[in-house]
Amino acid sequence: MREKSGTRRMRVTVGYDGTNYHGWQVQPALATVQGTLESVLGQIEGSAVHVEGSGRTDAGVHALAQVAAFNLANPIPAANLRRAMNRLLPRDIRVLSAEEAAREFEPRYGASAKSYEYRILRAEICPPFERFYVHHHPYPLNERLMMELGPLFEGEHDFTAFAASDDSDELGRSKVRRIFSSCLTREGDRLIYRVRGSGFLKHMVRNIVGVLLEAGKGNLTRENLEARLTPGCAIPAGPTAPARGLFLVSVEYE
Amino acid sequence: MREKSGTRRMRVTVGYDGTNYHGWQVQPALATVQGTLESVLGQIEGSAVHVEGSGRTDAGVHALAQVAAFNLANPIPAANLRRAMNRLLPRDIRVLSAEEAAREFEPRYGASAKSYEYRILRAEICPPFERFYVHHHPYPLNERLMMELGPLFEGEHDFTAFAASDDSDELGRSKVRRIFSSCLTREGDRLIYRVRGSGFLKHMVRNIVGVLLEAGKGNLTRENLEARLTPGCAIPAGPTAPARGLFLVSVEYE
Repeated sequence: MREKSGTRRMRVTVGYDGTNYHGWQVQPALATVQGTLESVLGQIEGSAVHVEGSGRTDAGVHALAQVAAFNLANPIPAANLRRAMNRLLPRDIRVLSAEEAAREFEPRYGASAKSYEYRILRAEICPPFERFYVHHHPYPLNERLMMELGPLFEGEHDFTAFAASDDSDELGRSKVRRIFSSCLTREGDRLIYRVRGSGFLKHMVRNIVGVLLEAGKGNLTRENLEARLTPGCAIPAGPTAPARGLFLVSVEYE
Repeated sequence: MREKSGTRRMRVTVGYDGTNYHGWQVQPALATVQGTLESVLGQIEGSAVHVEGSGRTDAGVHALAQVAAFNLANPIPAANLRRAMNRLLPRDIRVLSAEEAAREFEPRYGASAKSYEYRILRAEICPPFERFYVHHHPYPLNERLMMELGPLFEGEHDFTAFAASDDSDELGRSKVRRIFSSCLTREGDRLIYRVRGSGFLKHMVRNIVGVLLEAGKGNLTRENLEARLTPGCAIPAGPTAPARGLFLVSVEYE
């Protein structure tokens, strides 16, 4: 298939507050980040533009730097495109950068790594200004144990026990993923979980955090967690931590 | 007038995100911070409770630590009152502390000083997460001049030229106020104006910031500003900076 003559492949980095969106992916009659970007680009292009992202984010999940790509016939310079998009977009989505990319640039399958951050607020009271951006958990937690368990996720594992419960796996696709780093730290009154990996299943980061929280509450041991990382594990995915604490931090390409 | 026997005078410190409120003061059929607090306290007390604040904040203005007081017959301990209020309040209003106060404690006329902070974001792009909490002004400004002008507001001045335009002054009340400190600083990509004073007129801080911004744009000189601080000045109040950048930081009592 040949592209329309004169179209360019554009790559944008986008930050968004996911609070008011039903996630990244276009859904009929619902506000989504992809749908909002496509609508704005449709106005600039004068015809439908399909936007591809590096992956989906769930409803309420935020992005500091999601990467997306699309083809554009409009010859607008990249810097002007960024400004034009930001003028038309609602203030909870911002195009942080725009540039011309290689024609074959594919934000999803071309990504070599992704990083996420999950923020747990440990203060007794959640400041009003943070209410959409942290998971507020002021109750007792064995944080030391949680920190010790963080690195267990590193390496190549079958993450079946951390996939979304509605992931029916009908296609039998592999749930093996490689995690490069997985670390929980305490920063001020926040516990922050940072994870960088080759790719992530739906709900995977939130399910990892949910399981770490269960361990912190004393409901789950190191052995329980290791069992969940055993190939062919049949334990159903643990509690899913709330969306609001999760940020897609960056997407890497080789 | 005697209080109901057995009532206590309670003092609370409250933080709020003003974005979704029509300001502090009760207004019929509109969501306000005072109205929301009174509604929640009415549930706890089982009868109407009148809440007095240290002063009003405008629609969209935030508070890190507003002070309020009310009388309560319910013998609930102060720490439990705080928790009960936070359970019932929406997450954009938080009671940070609650304590029993002297019977004569009067949050408005008893205040000896108030501090405000106004945040101007100078970055080209406003992060989605800050959109309700800064005034985004990415355009050129003579920041050095603005910083030099900041301290001109210190001391006792007639702030008629900085009062709200709808302040009709029918009662002829003095518009003289004492400012203890007034300072503009650059912190990272933010210009922050901090002011502490004995009291403030409606819109006064936003009008000071509006005038400082006009000076930064080259539309107003040091002499123009000094003229506005001259007793009896008849210059109408300058542009009012947007509410979203303003935070009530603290209220002091002797």
